[in-house]
Amino acid sequence: METVLLTVAYDGSRYYGWQRQTKLRSVQGELEKALSHALKQPITVDASGRTDAGVHGLAQTVTFRYIKTLPIEKMVVVINRRLPEDIIILSAEKVNDDFHARYCAIAKAYEYHFAFGCDRNPFNSSYRYNQPHHLDIDKMIVAMKDFEGTHDFTAFQATGSEKENTIRTIYKVHLEKRNDEFVFTVVGNGFLYNMVRIMMGTLFSIGNGQIPEASIPQIIKSQLRANAKVTAPANGLYLKQVFYDKASLENFIKNLN
Amino acid sequence: METVLLTVAYDGSRYYGWQRQTKLRSVQGELEKALSHALKQPITVDASGRTDAGVHGLAQTVTFRYIKTLPIEKMVVVINRRLPEDIIILSAEKVNDDFHARYCAIAKAYEYHFAFGCDRNPFNSSYRYNQPHHLDIDKMIVAMKDFEGTHDFTAFQATGSEKENTIRTIYKVHLEKRNDEFVFTVVGNGFLYNMVRIMMGTLFSIGNGQIPEASIPQIIKSQLRANAKVTAPANGLYLKQVFYDKASLENFIKNLN
Repeated sequence: METVLLTVAYDGSRYYGWQRQTKLRSVQGELEKALSHALKQPITVDASGRTDAGVHGLAQTVTFRYIKTLPIEKMVVVINRRLPEDIIILSAEKVNDDFHARYCAIAKAYEYHFAFGCDRNPFNSSYRYNQPHHLDIDKMIVAMKDFEGTHDFTAFQATGSEKENTIRTIYKVHLEKRNDEFVFTVVGNGFLYNMVRIMMGTLFSIGNGQIPEASIPQIIKSQLRANAKVTAPANGLYLKQVFYDKASLENFIKNLN
Repeated sequence: METVLLTVAYDGSRYYGWQRQTKLRSVQGELEKALSHALKQPITVDASGRTDAGVHGLAQTVTFRYIKTLPIEKMVVVINRRLPEDIIILSAEKVNDDFHARYCAIAKAYEYHFAFGCDRNPFNSSYRYNQPHHLDIDKMIVAMKDFEGTHDFTAFQATGSEKENTIRTIYKVHLEKRNDEFVFTVVGNGFLYNMVRIMMGTLFSIGNGQIPEASIPQIIKSQLRANAKVTAPANGLYLKQVFYDKASLENFIKNLN
């Protein structure tokens, strides 16, 4: 048996999320189907984590084990031929048998793409959130820095989630204009359920003046989901990168500045 | 009662086509729902024609009649607020009561977007057809000119269609590189079911050398669907414009050169 690490990109628009489901189309389901056919054995994959319906993957990572029916260097071409056009394997590499896409990850980066006040374009509605209100981006850039550091993020977790440990470290937040949209990037050692989307929703409320610029520390401290703001829509969210070593994490953060 | 002409753009990716269906999500269904709510009366619209599942509209036209519960100049803003983000009304104008989006149309233009040999990008798979084979574009440009003129296009109609009159006039075909893709534009006085996609599929077969460059006249003459090639996928097709007067039609054709 060999253990393989795949890096996968996908457009989440037409899937009911990452996780395999019996009746609904999922990214994991399509990937496992393609792998099982091509490798002539039943394959189940472990991802770095799930993504919700509508969320996109720019470099999701998955590991799986297989009886070597196909050389790893041929895997990208062979599997991509069997995948739907909106899922693509970017790379495949042999890893040690104790390597696991989720347990070995030391950090993750997400991007949230949004725009505001611009003309509506029906062709990008799956790929960014068009915020109806005017946003004070400068204010958001100041406020978001309060997310950095190690905090109990209970207030930024979807109600009903059951993570025992709600403490996470945010290494870096960044917000920049890119072409005709804004991109919020957040790098952390882990994220609670819906955490990035609730962080983003709260920043929108700061940007449109609904709550004061300095609200984030109190919301964190309260540990009450009700104090954070609405969950931003899934369509603007992208899993940007999963990190397995300190050097690539530090390099990613350095390039954000 | 007033009669209104709407111009509508939509991303067809997440719809089961234009036409209203009882259980499946359609563009017409969403539009009629938004109009009926906003205008406080049941509205049904007449479109210039249907588009299939996955086909996009850049400027579909529809007419409908309503009791004037809302001034026409407010319609764009009010209705867009109620529409899903992937459908947008571009304009609304009062027209004479005998104006009808389909019967008054004198011509239509479609675009087909495709690429080949380029890296697969999971984020554009709904918006163009990534042709797996290398295509000789110059050959296609020469061959496509045989579509122009007045012909019986039975061979370029989906089998099982029931149009009594299968003669159509193609005013202009055009093929150009636009950014990282190719755009085939066809302007005609009308189109049979799947006609643009079968024309495109046949051009692909010429571009990849499967059939000779000069095949089109014989295929047309044969009046046999089996002689034309496969129907190109829906996702590359865009309804570009519907023409109601000769001046705008001539202007559109002039700008294609």
